[in-house]
Amino acid sequence: MPDFTALSNATSRRDFLRKSAVAAAAGLPAVATLSACSDSKAAPRPDSLATGPVAAPAAPALTASQKADAMDAMHERGVKAFPAKTEGKGNQILPPRLVSGVKVYELTAEEVEWEVEPGRKVKAWAYNRQVPGPQIRVREGDRVRVILTNRLSQSTAVHFHGLELPNDQDGVPFITQPPVKPGESYTYEFTVPNAGSHMYHSHHNAAVQVGNGLLGAFIVEPRRPLAAHRADVDYVMVLNDGAHGYTLNGKGFPATEPIVCAQGQTVRLRFMNEGMMIHPMHLHGMHMTVIAKDGWDQPAPWKCDTLNIAPGERWDVLVKATNPGTWAFHCHILPHAESEHGMFGMVTALVVQKRGVA
Amino acid sequence: MPDFTALSNATSRRDFLRKSAVAAAAGLPAVATLSACSDSKAAPRPDSLATGPVAAPAAPALTASQKADAMDAMHERGVKAFPAKTEGKGNQILPPRLVSGVKVYELTAEEVEWEVEPGRKVKAWAYNRQVPGPQIRVREGDRVRVILTNRLSQSTAVHFHGLELPNDQDGVPFITQPPVKPGESYTYEFTVPNAGSHMYHSHHNAAVQVGNGLLGAFIVEPRRPLAAHRADVDYVMVLNDGAHGYTLNGKGFPATEPIVCAQGQTVRLRFMNEGMMIHPMHLHGMHMTVIAKDGWDQPAPWKCDTLNIAPGERWDVLVKATNPGTWAFHCHILPHAESEHGMFGMVTALVVQKRGVA
Amino acid sequence: MPDFTALSNATSRRDFLRKSAVAAAAGLPAVATLSACSDSKAAPRPDSLATGPVAAPAAPALTASQKADAMDAMHERGVKAFPAKTEGKGNQILPPRLVSGVKVYELTAEEVEWEVEPGRKVKAWAYNRQVPGPQIRVREGDRVRVILTNRLSQSTAVHFHGLELPNDQDGVPFITQPPVKPGESYTYEFTVPNAGSHMYHSHHNAAVQVGNGLLGAFIVEPRRPLAAHRADVDYVMVLNDGAHGYTLNGKGFPATEPIVCAQGQTVRLRFMNEGMMIHPMHLHGMHMTVIAKDGWDQPAPWKCDTLNIAPGERWDVLVKATNPGTWAFHCHILPHAESEHGMFGMVTALVVQKRGVA
Repeated sequence: MPDFTALSNATSRRDFLRKSAVAAAAGLPAVATLSACSDSKAAPRPDSLATGPVAAPAAPALTASQKADAMDAMHERGVKAFPAKTEGKGNQILPPRLVSGVKVYELTAEEVEWEVEPGRKVKAWAYNRQVPGPQIRVREGDRVRVILTNRLSQSTAVHFHGLELPNDQDGVPFITQPPVKPGESYTYEFTVPNAGSHMYHSHHNAAVQVGNGLLGAFIVEPRRPLAAHRADVDYVMVLNDGAHGYTLNGKGFPATEPIVCAQGQTVRLRFMNEGMMIHPMHLHGMHMTVIAKDGWDQPAPWKCDTLNIAPGERWDVLVKATNPGTWAFHCHILPHAESEHGMFGMVTALVVQKRGVA
Repeated sequence: MPDFTALSNATSRRDFLRKSAVAAAAGLPAVATLSACSDSKAAPRPDSLATGPVAAPAAPALTASQKADAMDAMHERGVKAFPAKTEGKGNQILPPRLVSGVKVYELTAEEVEWEVEPGRKVKAWAYNRQVPGPQIRVREGDRVRVILTNRLSQSTAVHFHGLELPNDQDGVPFITQPPVKPGESYTYEFTVPNAGSHMYHSHHNAAVQVGNGLLGAFIVEPRRPLAAHRADVDYVMVLNDGAHGYTLNGKGFPATEPIVCAQGQTVRLRFMNEGMMIHPMHLHGMHMTVIAKDGWDQPAPWKCDTLNIAPGERWDVLVKATNPGTWAFHCHILPHAESEHGMFGMVTALVVQKRGVA
Repeated sequence: MPDFTALSNATSRRDFLRKSAVAAAAGLPAVATLSACSDSKAAPRPDSLATGPVAAPAAPALTASQKADAMDAMHERGVKAFPAKTEGKGNQILPPRLVSGVKVYELTAEEVEWEVEPGRKVKAWAYNRQVPGPQIRVREGDRVRVILTNRLSQSTAVHFHGLELPNDQDGVPFITQPPVKPGESYTYEFTVPNAGSHMYHSHHNAAVQVGNGLLGAFIVEPRRPLAAHRADVDYVMVLNDGAHGYTLNGKGFPATEPIVCAQGQTVRLRFMNEGMMIHPMHLHGMHMTVIAKDGWDQPAPWKCDTLNIAPGERWDVLVKATNPGTWAFHCHILPHAESEHGMFGMVTALVVQKRGVA
């Protein structure tokens, strides 16, 4: 199993900065790149003498306006702040309680305050005070019990999006179950039928409830994983565009989480769109190899650098991290990623750390 | 050929309820599920004693607010009304008149009143008083004549979207033909060149005319159908988001039509988007196997549970109905499917009836 | 190598009309079709006596209203004007300057006036006074130098979208380089690593700068082209929906450029979306065979007539031009292509010229 716990759980903002420092000390570009390039008068780089800023000989003698400088400063501030520390971290793996061989997960839906970017706090409806809710990771064939407690002011229910469950576990009020009223609990229990990258979310007043944050990843490891799908890093990226603005795993840039790996490693990304708009995610510097759609293997892998992800879809891709550096990674609907004040929203980075020289 | 006529023509709302009753009497869940779960104090189900609503021990003593109850009641009302009876049914198969071996179809475009949901009547521009217009079903190689009569106040024309016709039958005013003026008729005639799920619609002032309802399905059965594509139920689902709101085959939930099959049967769905937005259609409980795009077989079938359908696209999928029950089936752009008043718009259900015990 | 230069460089509006005239004289339909059908009282066509406008016997005695005629006249005017002459042509191939084996391209970003449709002139931010910027065409493995000169009032930078470059050539201010200030120049230099249909555009304040026109195609021919991908015509189509409205290669219909080929030829289309919305492009009369996504070959080609293209995506397709005539080719989000005043925006035509009889 890939070491996804390391990334998802251990890589706090502080860890990231500390590790990056180590990487930098070892001569690695990583996040050092982020600030190394912030000086517009950087010296020519030894490996590329022909490049770099020089006076434009043919251009009229324009001076850079203060307006341009002010805009650049705002852009620089955002990049330098990345990854910015905020309160709360969503999508953390929830360890189950084991009861007679059943993996038991407790989810409590309640209203919380959620910091999307530094200083921007919003009301969120969250499972276990996280947006996205805690990540559930099980294996095909596991017996699972999910106990939902509703501390919201509205009824709710949990739909396990992508799991082919018995009808009465499908989580749609008035079709497969009664709504779970405020103050009540409700228990789902099932044997996990199909592997893949799935989701759980409210299916009651869902345009509002999911938009407010009642959503999470439900990952099912296959019983017999394909060797071709082996990955060193396994990362879930939940896209959203509801009440909290444009977010990746509940945060907007610069508070989004970078994805970090070593050169030569393979990263598995599991995209999930819980929003209301399509988001074509574009990775710089390397391509993605698409291996699965909605948890089902594609008949043959195919490559791209921009993957269009519609609401409700999940796409699994592998990235062979051959190209060292800090790579922008963002929604290519540009107003979801950048304004005149700099990058924001659906922007993060894939950081490929160069192998240290022995 | 699959028995699509049974579903498309015979399954009126009344039939559906009657059949469901029969199914229920035989111990089948079907639509009975819809109301069986409407009581939030339902008794524990014998097959799943661990589940069901119980008092949340750790939760503070919240009483469900009247506001939550009122919202739930609205949601319940919608589900209980499904499938709601409305006047008019679109997408009915139009039997041709045979004239010297030519299949002759007459289409009359005119303004009608159209009931989208119970009590919501809108102006529609319709072919043969149906939205979508009547379904044309022919076979590859058939000789077909389509006689359009224009009783609208604007000129119009019919484009056969997806058919690779001789240029002068392509239906684009001023490029391949003159516009058909109000009061005039115009005749198209051609030998059907390519199989697949196609469409016909206005190609004149089309953003308005198609948005108002001038559209229909044009299905071409292949001369040599693939055994792998054999289906028991063949269902065309036309998506729209124009002047009449979010609709499936011209109706909004709860007036949409459920798709009904027996457990173990194969359902072929032919999605067609005649709107202006993408609609990722999500099926609960089972996956879809995608077999064709725009009438052309995919090189290899692939699976998903959420299929992104853009305007002008047609996608054919097979669903192996292994999982009995009533399954929500909706656009996953949630504001196209649910509001605080309950589900609406692009929502229907796939009803998989359990085989009766002998 | 396909003869893309002929089309991209030589086919001015005047050339097009002249050639079409020749084609018409030789009995070819081509653009002649555009006006031949503009008379609603056209004589019956000899090859299809059953078709054509006739009085509707069953219809009430409606006279075509003057309102309908006025609308038709506006629609006709648009079609007859196509391809309308405007000032400026984007996407022209930029011949490199060869310096010691390096292909050197100079790009100057500056504000220009750009005529989108006849008489509609807008402010554009352009590379080399073109929208899209000049097309760069190189071969896998080429050494390339791109010298950017910034004559705008804002800083900028060039990102080579899809090229897997060394990190310091990736063009993202503050992450991989400093911003290029107004009045400055900046030099990129790299060995072209991967073939395919790529793009270059600003990656600084990009929602504004790309929307205003700072974008272009960067095509990389493979070292070993596949025989199956051989094409007679190679056409790049850049979609946009920013500050200039709905455009194909910087122009809106009727100022868009038709794609012209002879019957039996193969046309390679390279779609690129530089906008903020998806655009499902629909070709009439023939299907497209999709061969590549973002410059990477698909594992198996697949067919469609409507191809959904999201921002940042590139899709390569082949069209076997078997069906002679002038074929509408447009975004199927109809409000991007037609209003009550006629077709506009993302509309062009594929003109398949019938082979002359010897």
